[in-house]
Amino acid sequence: MRYVTFGDEPAVSPDDFFMNEAIREAKLALAEDEIPIGAIVVCQGKIIGRGHNLTERLNDVSAHAEMQALTAAANYMGGKYLPECTLYVTLEPCVMCAGACYWFQLSRIVFGAYDTKRGFGRLNQKITHPKTVITGGIHENECADLVRDFFKSKRK
Amino acid sequence: MRYVTFGDEPAVSPDDFFMNEAIREAKLALAEDEIPIGAIVVCQGKIIGRGHNLTERLNDVSAHAEMQALTAAANYMGGKYLPECTLYVTLEPCVMCAGACYWFQLSRIVFGAYDTKRGFGRLNQKITHPKTVITGGIHENECADLVRDFFKSKRK
Repeated sequence: MRYVTFGDEPAVSPDDFFMNEAIREAKLALAEDEIPIGAIVVCQGKIIGRGHNLTERLNDVSAHAEMQALTAAANYMGGKYLPECTLYVTLEPCVMCAGACYWFQLSRIVFGAYDTKRGFGRLNQKITHPKTVITGGIHENECADLVRDFFKSKRK
Repeated sequence: MRYVTFGDEPAVSPDDFFMNEAIREAKLALAEDEIPIGAIVVCQGKIIGRGHNLTERLNDVSAHAEMQALTAAANYMGGKYLPECTLYVTLEPCVMCAGACYWFQLSRIVFGAYDTKRGFGRLNQKITHPKTVITGGIHENECADLVRDFFKSKRK
């Protein structure tokens, strides 16, 4: 496992580092009064796509953070597939986004909070690409709190 | 069941009529050398969204016919959901598109050819919205032939 260091600061793992970047995207969504979910796509240590939930601004229920980040990354790569890329997303992808990850042939998906209601993991069948490795629960509490606090504030 | 008539022509069922419109979209994809899949969204007998596969032109593996037609329809409606709408698509939707149909809360999905490899029906669990009614096999052969002939011509 490679670690990212900045001068004298303590080393952080790549997963910590990049999930923080996804959280930063989620906070951009929050600032726009969107459900705070953020995503980035990383290729060989470089962020090549970013996105956050835009369902309200675009008035489009399919404008999920992952879709923005994946299409931005593919656009940057100039190719159609993302076989050496990792998607970092603050919330477990839904079935639509996991289905999109299949088409993009991602090498890895790393997500923060689990989504037991809408997450693709609730399905007992593998719907991502056979080569895609899944890691869940990175910065889980922080990612979950963002969404929970957002809905709590809406109910007030 | 309501039927659409044109002067002295024989009556056609709405499903036949609208699937023919989806096939017309698929042929537009074919003319652009795209995998010939077409989709339309119908609300109360009116076509409010059209789309065909644009994965090559947009260099985007997620640019499926359904995604184009659904976002066009939602844009036309000015709302986020499509609860009284039917999606007509020439090929059984993939997991991504079926997942999108969930978010759009469609009342009905009508597809032409079955896709036993990538269609959402291969999953044993319901991934579309509980209220969404599914009909498959409308103009099945014509829809299947379009895709089959396309790939046959590519292998020559």
